[in-house]
Amino acid sequence: MKNILLLGAGQSASTLIQYLLTLNDANGWQIAIGDVNAELANKKGEGKARGFAFNVTNVAQLEEEVGKVDLVISMLPARFHMAVANACLKFSKHLVTASYVNTEMRELDEEAKRKGLVFLNECGLDPGIDHMSAMQVIDQIRNNGNELIGFESFTGGLLAPTDEENPWKYKFTWNSRNVVLAGQGVVKFIQEGRYKFIPYHRLFRRTEIVHIPKYGEFEGYANRDSLQYLDVYNLRGIKTLYRGTFRRPGFSKAWNIFVQLGATDDSFQMEDVETMTHRQFINSFLSYNPHDSVELKLAHYLNLDMQGEIMHKLKWVGIFSDELVGLKEGTPAQILEAILRKKWTLSSQDKDMIVMWHKFNYIDKNNNNRETEIHSSIVTMGENTTHTAMSKTVGLPLGIASKLILEGKVKSRGVIIPIVKELYEPILTELSEDFGFDFTESCVLTPQE
Amino acid sequence: MKNILLLGAGQSASTLIQYLLTLNDANGWQIAIGDVNAELANKKGEGKARGFAFNVTNVAQLEEEVGKVDLVISMLPARFHMAVANACLKFSKHLVTASYVNTEMRELDEEAKRKGLVFLNECGLDPGIDHMSAMQVIDQIRNNGNELIGFESFTGGLLAPTDEENPWKYKFTWNSRNVVLAGQGVVKFIQEGRYKFIPYHRLFRRTEIVHIPKYGEFEGYANRDSLQYLDVYNLRGIKTLYRGTFRRPGFSKAWNIFVQLGATDDSFQMEDVETMTHRQFINSFLSYNPHDSVELKLAHYLNLDMQGEIMHKLKWVGIFSDELVGLKEGTPAQILEAILRKKWTLSSQDKDMIVMWHKFNYIDKNNNNRETEIHSSIVTMGENTTHTAMSKTVGLPLGIASKLILEGKVKSRGVIIPIVKELYEPILTELSEDFGFDFTESCVLTPQE
Repeated sequence: MKNILLLGAGQSASTLIQYLLTLNDANGWQIAIGDVNAELANKKGEGKARGFAFNVTNVAQLEEEVGKVDLVISMLPARFHMAVANACLKFSKHLVTASYVNTEMRELDEEAKRKGLVFLNECGLDPGIDHMSAMQVIDQIRNNGNELIGFESFTGGLLAPTDEENPWKYKFTWNSRNVVLAGQGVVKFIQEGRYKFIPYHRLFRRTEIVHIPKYGEFEGYANRDSLQYLDVYNLRGIKTLYRGTFRRPGFSKAWNIFVQLGATDDSFQMEDVETMTHRQFINSFLSYNPHDSVELKLAHYLNLDMQGEIMHKLKWVGIFSDELVGLKEGTPAQILEAILRKKWTLSSQDKDMIVMWHKFNYIDKNNNNRETEIHSSIVTMGENTTHTAMSKTVGLPLGIASKLILEGKVKSRGVIIPIVKELYEPILTELSEDFGFDFTESCVLTPQE
Repeated sequence: MKNILLLGAGQSASTLIQYLLTLNDANGWQIAIGDVNAELANKKGEGKARGFAFNVTNVAQLEEEVGKVDLVISMLPARFHMAVANACLKFSKHLVTASYVNTEMRELDEEAKRKGLVFLNECGLDPGIDHMSAMQVIDQIRNNGNELIGFESFTGGLLAPTDEENPWKYKFTWNSRNVVLAGQGVVKFIQEGRYKFIPYHRLFRRTEIVHIPKYGEFEGYANRDSLQYLDVYNLRGIKTLYRGTFRRPGFSKAWNIFVQLGATDDSFQMEDVETMTHRQFINSFLSYNPHDSVELKLAHYLNLDMQGEIMHKLKWVGIFSDELVGLKEGTPAQILEAILRKKWTLSSQDKDMIVMWHKFNYIDKNNNNRETEIHSSIVTMGENTTHTAMSKTVGLPLGIASKLILEGKVKSRGVIIPIVKELYEPILTELSEDFGFDFTESCVLTPQE
């Protein structure tokens, strides 16, 4: 019998908890769930798991609970992982998280190895499934003796197709603040052997369209720093390396209006927020002109067609309304987020979807050095407002990885991420076979001149 | 007889030192000049001042030198002012600087007052002459019982008109790094009673043209934070408040190309800088396309006419050249600065000029509440590469203020800035009468409807 401790029972843990309960059903493994909200922890445990009130800053409690189990899954905010990791080291327990490995975590590698522990991180969706699905194909290409020359990858957390006449075809399905701030800073990638940089204010105009069979077209804009994947995936020398985010076509051009206005700025507090309307918020980024409407000033400033699609999206989402923002204070980004949440919050009928797409280019050494391209995609839909696609894609890899570790099927030790076959292969297989994740892969021969 | 200690004898102190030497000539006042470079200090002192090697981190030396004099002028980098200020407090000496008052300095106010000391800051050009020339008119308007409703102010450090066919009509006349980074962050101002914000990437497209009689047209873009002047000048309730920077017309549209590219970004180190050419630098912000030239890609990306004025400016300044940048490493902003310095460094023939312009709007209570506008400008030219306009405008106010303090003509005590009549009036008069600063003021009646 194995014992698992899950820390954090919020929205994103719902599907993970369901998965852990099946381990209890099948193998009698004991599950304990700690959350600041004991009632929530108990309710989600459905009587099969022990829920308890948990406070991560209470070291005595943390150590007592960690000491009792074989493996800890931390769904706590990333800043608390180190406290958990230290307790795991102290009592020699495995640890699994969905968060990025930072320097502090990396420094535990040696000690974790020495104690024979797995500290598996970046094992959710992004980071997580992106690593696994990419490395599966990359390893395949390399194992065949071929040379990888290009890797592009996009992920999107989107609204599943709906009847609603939402011209953005988008709602917040995850952390709305991160969506508003997405892309700030400088975007870095490699294109045909050259380092390329895009400043934030140009990002949403440099998009590309990707077609995914059965699911239609998606629009991708670049993520902040693709270069870090040079080392993560061992891609030094690759000619093209680009990671991005998917939206539905047309989203970026309209979103760009907010960027151009400065409405996504998070660096300063605005004035008089308590009495500010949506319309006044937008007007504060436009010149004074007592004769023109805010709509007309905006259209003129950013060269928009008053009857066009972008203006339609902006009107639909309510930015010209005389409604109060409803905050007491805030940065432009916080105020924009508050305005957008009024229209972009999922209803009980809405479902979300996750779309991930990779493109690999390689020189086929077994076929006259012909350049070949592989497309691989993964699509999964939310089932309802609890088991959203986000909750599934973050939670299931954590759950499956935890099972594999406790079954002794993972030989790696130390601070790792799921880019090794012993992890990605069984996890991707289970996601596809047992949980309906739609994986497809197709090979494209690049036309020869 | 009075004793003055000047700390810092660099380029910007040249005119100040000349001024101090005249005080020695006229009144026999003793001048001591401390600089890390003793030779420089001695040379600039022309045998009339005592130059010595000075190290601000040597507290014993600092205190010994401060102890000997009546007043200290610090031209050291702003971060060293607190050490000097503390020594001045300890030995009860007056202090004069051209730097902004920060929180630490402000906290010395009470003790300086108690000891009967003047700690005068922000007494150079900007901050300095801007405060003085603005407050002179603002006080005038208020003393006549009128209501100030608008204040706009622009300052530019520019290249004096020249025969050279420099299409930018601009060279670096001061800190080139600050010029490259100018405007980063968010611009805040008040227009007709409304707070307005401009993000950096739109700043150089929201310019206005100002005509100054005898000197022609200037183009102004907004400075970062005008709102701080609400309190500095006691302007709470004012309807329009805007501070900006002058360039020659056409500059901003061309500069905007660097901003749009991301070439002014200072947040990350670029790759392969040692082998990078100007052209490769620009290309790193453009998409890959093996068939088009860098010029064509840039023109297409930012919608420029290949034969137009902006492209002419860009070509003239050398950004498409195959010349090496000449740095070992650098951020985009550092690399752009290095490229521009090759063309934008003053030659021995070049002269700089400082242009300052204020616009005041007020309700004339003595004339049927008629809205009235006052324009006030100050222009001064550099004499040569030593006594530049920058050196004159920063140094002379410091020198004159020091004289006034030592003559007992300044009654204010504590940490102050030159917004009081006892300072601005004699300083502005001396600048105009003895140093050829061209002050003009004109009154404009706003047309009535």
